Amino acid sequence: MVVLYDDQIIEREQARIDPEDRAYQFGDGVYEVIRVYYGQPFYMKEHLARLQRSATEIRMNLPYPLEQLEQRLLQLLQRSGLQEGNLYIQISRGTAPRNHAFPSNARPLTLAYTQPSPRPVKELSEGVSAITTEDIRWLRCDIKSLNLLGAVLAKQKAVDHGSKEAILVRDGIITEGSSTNIFIVKDGVLWTHPANHLILHGITRQITLQIADELQIPVKKQPFSKEELFTADECFLTSTTMEICPIIQIDGKPVKSGTPGPITRQLQQAFEKQIALLQSRLSKSSK
Amino acid sequence: MVVLYDDQIIEREQARIDPEDRAYQFGDGVYEVIRVYYGQPFYMKEHLARLQRSATEIRMNLPYPLEQLEQRLLQLLQRSGLQEGNLYIQISRGTAPRNHAFPSNARPLTLAYTQPSPRPVKELSEGVSAITTEDIRWLRCDIKSLNLLGAVLAKQKAVDHGSKEAILVRDGIITEGSSTNIFIVKDGVLWTHPANHLILHGITRQITLQIADELQIPVKKQPFSKEELFTADECFLTSTTMEICPIIQIDGKPVKSGTPGPITRQLQQAFEKQIALLQSRLSKSSK
Repeated sequence: MVVLYDDQIIEREQARIDPEDRAYQFGDGVYEVIRVYYGQPFYMKEHLARLQRSATEIRMNLPYPLEQLEQRLLQLLQRSGLQEGNLYIQISRGTAPRNHAFPSNARPLTLAYTQPSPRPVKELSEGVSAITTEDIRWLRCDIKSLNLLGAVLAKQKAVDHGSKEAILVRDGIITEGSSTNIFIVKDGVLWTHPANHLILHGITRQITLQIADELQIPVKKQPFSKEELFTADECFLTSTTMEICPIIQIDGKPVKSGTPGPITRQLQQAFEKQIALLQSRLSKSSK
Repeated sequence: MVVLYDDQIIEREQARIDPEDRAYQFGDGVYEVIRVYYGQPFYMKEHLARLQRSATEIRMNLPYPLEQLEQRLLQLLQRSGLQEGNLYIQISRGTAPRNHAFPSNARPLTLAYTQPSPRPVKELSEGVSAITTEDIRWLRCDIKSLNLLGAVLAKQKAVDHGSKEAILVRDGIITEGSSTNIFIVKDGVLWTHPANHLILHGITRQITLQIADELQIPVKKQPFSKEELFTADECFLTSTTMEICPIIQIDGKPVKSGTPGPITRQLQQAFEKQIALLQSRLSKSSK
């Protein structure tokens, strides 16, 4: 197995992280997970733009230009031979003697590797269950940082309850899932939390909103309450790895009839077409 | 230089952190900084008890008993030859393929090392300046976890303003400093934020409260506002590395007369006696 380490592709065993790497001691870094279908990255430029934004927000310079990073990631993907799975990339602020304030001359460390991961076909078809739990995370959830302990604890609580996801509630308002964005449908209108500092601005969330626009489904990017969640006609989550996935049960109670709803299905079908486009582009380019 | 790695003392160069260590990818771990004076750890048992509590709160088992960890840390300290400085220790949840939920069979990884660091004599004598900034951290600041990005950004803001510390303000209330606890004196009464989920329950904070009790200084463990901070008679911070340190200027404005106050001095002197006790114990044991 190979990994991208700084700007070199090396064997995983050779990738040594220093004990004083700031990601190890402070979670001081940012990351992205890019989905790979048919050996090709999906919305890579959008993910890299967000990586750049996250880095800027924590006042970290990338160690080399984004274009070079994109080339390295494509080389890594090709070397790995991955067909279906995830391309994980993180950039830490680098190694320096431990001190909260920024180091004066550390070089940020890029680390990236691929993970085979099949599409969650069963979940996409049948839907998943979720629980609700308090959102105890920091107030800059728009930054995709390595400070993920709040999300980890919420996700584990979901797993303990036999559920796929934890839906986070802050001051009575649904923000997002522990590693997903959350949508509901109410009287034909799609609701999701606005893209402010309380949620991650998910790429799949953005794709879903574009699709809704094309399908002329009315959208309200407005906060909705836990009560509105429990009386929704449909509910679904979006994420890079889970795509657009129906939520059919929350805290043990069925969402409406307890089966994936019609608007969720419409959106899923349109998303499926985008994935199929990758395949058709591939077969054209190989002719 | 040697480090404690799991339960072995090894050369630092041999301490290899795996790219999929959960501390590296999620900040999924806990830590402590123990002060060393005259080659001896200061309040070590209290720090280790808090380490145990932090681990319990994030539902992580220690890899081996606390007594064994204490022995290993004492060996590390002796091997290092450190006389004055810090003993840093962190425990990560261990290495596993990336997934938010807890891994089923990862072994938590202990890493510890020493850092020479002189006492901040000048700061303790003259006092330091601070800034105020919004507290954007998560709602479990009582856990000493590796998710420190909020604290890092606040500390860097202080450094940018030529100050030593950032005093954090949540909803108009002073919680604590980015890596310290904050006290004010008002009409002879000592105020500090109660030890709830919004602050770290500092060991030096506890020592200070004990000293105040012994000196019969009245204490209110109650929240105080930013306005009360700015009209305080005295202000100081406490931390393992900064001890009890006067704050003489906040956001460019002097605290009262802009010099360390009498109650701060009283507390500092009593703290100094505790450090001196370590030295006298040492000279007795070497006889």
